[in-house]
Amino acid sequence: MKEVSQLTPKEIRSLIRKGTWDKPTAGLAMGYAQANLVILPQKYAFDFLLFCQRNPKPCPLLEVLEAGRFRTKYLSLDADIRTDIPRYNIYRKGKLEATVKEIRGLWKHDFVTFLLGCSFSFEEALLRSKIPIRHIEENKNVPMFITNIPCQPAGVFYGPMVVTMRPIPPNKVTQAVQVTARYASVHGAPVHIGDPSKIGIKNIHKPDFGDPVTIRKGEIPVFWACGVTPQAVVMKAKPDLCITHAPGHMFVSDLLNEELATF
Amino acid sequence: MKEVSQLTPKEIRSLIRKGTWDKPTAGLAMGYAQANLVILPQKYAFDFLLFCQRNPKPCPLLEVLEAGRFRTKYLSLDADIRTDIPRYNIYRKGKLEATVKEIRGLWKHDFVTFLLGCSFSFEEALLRSKIPIRHIEENKNVPMFITNIPCQPAGVFYGPMVVTMRPIPPNKVTQAVQVTARYASVHGAPVHIGDPSKIGIKNIHKPDFGDPVTIRKGEIPVFWACGVTPQAVVMKAKPDLCITHAPGHMFVSDLLNEELATF
Repeated sequence: MKEVSQLTPKEIRSLIRKGTWDKPTAGLAMGYAQANLVILPQKYAFDFLLFCQRNPKPCPLLEVLEAGRFRTKYLSLDADIRTDIPRYNIYRKGKLEATVKEIRGLWKHDFVTFLLGCSFSFEEALLRSKIPIRHIEENKNVPMFITNIPCQPAGVFYGPMVVTMRPIPPNKVTQAVQVTARYASVHGAPVHIGDPSKIGIKNIHKPDFGDPVTIRKGEIPVFWACGVTPQAVVMKAKPDLCITHAPGHMFVSDLLNEELATF
Repeated sequence: MKEVSQLTPKEIRSLIRKGTWDKPTAGLAMGYAQANLVILPQKYAFDFLLFCQRNPKPCPLLEVLEAGRFRTKYLSLDADIRTDIPRYNIYRKGKLEATVKEIRGLWKHDFVTFLLGCSFSFEEALLRSKIPIRHIEENKNVPMFITNIPCQPAGVFYGPMVVTMRPIPPNKVTQAVQVTARYASVHGAPVHIGDPSKIGIKNIHKPDFGDPVTIRKGEIPVFWACGVTPQAVVMKAKPDLCITHAPGHMFVSDLLNEELATF
């Protein structure tokens, strides 16, 4: 029998669909893009789609499904968005109500599904370029910070950008920009390099989410837009209902990270 | 008094607003991005926004205004979309009803405005790279062709991609790809290089729109996605009402073409 880490995206989704795998997806199907999930009732869909159009760095759309559709066409031809994610969070009026393993019973004809790119894709490219990623080395969650950079609001959605931080040796910063810039659909180039206070971060050792990581002498903190941004913005808008993936429990797609990269 | 070609975007929009300038905008405010206009009632807005998200090459969104808003925030802080375009086409159920110089009287609170990138922006970059543009040399309209490349449909919107063709000397084709790839928000890299029949074009000397241009011995026809695509797709969907710019009579923005380019 194959190790889980050797399974194809299709095999992983099949295990998830059966309820056999309900754990985080980091490290699975290496090379393939994973996606964040946001499901909203149709009345919020235009505003959220517009929010993503205006804020492509924190909200890089990979695929949007019309109201009621639960089968992807671009990220996979063999997926059901109601069952193929290991754990779903159900929010009502911005409050977490439950975490569940499938949402077939909850599904409504007016649900619009948004799948957004995630930084796993560009982290793989950084590692290939021999650029160290501290939170992976230290087996931690990436440190995340709420900044003072406002997103462009759209309809009911507004709020500050959330960023991830990776400490980069000074002689690798340019390369880190170049490598990640190719991945515009998975957050792309950094939004800030250096002094954390310039984007409203008071203490680089106290992230708002995730874990603190070691910053070695001389290393430069580099900040990328983070997929927590759209989730935070949606919670603040308190929609009647919103369904997301549980943190770390992502949609595993059939697209290679390289298929998402530009030249 | 300044030549018209020397006016700033703000000065040009002011002349247009007064009705003094109602001619095409090609050659005005060189260096600044011009935009295509599509205005639709709100009930079509999600589908059209989704169509653009799914088809970014033919439909590169520069700015979308929420229902009822007629002032841009990104392309200019000093523009009124109801008056600042030299000529508007009014379509009802897909049929051209009138061409007018302003639309204040027609404006409704549910109108959603879409501004899309145009190839003027990357043509300037091609010329700067000493890549010849035949239709400019021959003082013609760019030749446009309906292809057999289907756009990804979205809701009521579907149809084939329309492309522009520019004959490029073989030793400049790679550079033409590289130069235009930087301009993803104004159609970006070519969608096809070479044999026109591969994308369903029967006669390269008989464009569906625009003018035929000379293709010199050895030159390669290179095809870029064209902003006529979304207009054709909208007409086919026959919305109750749609307002566009009249061909060539574009919105002149305050953004430099260079501000739209990626690395």
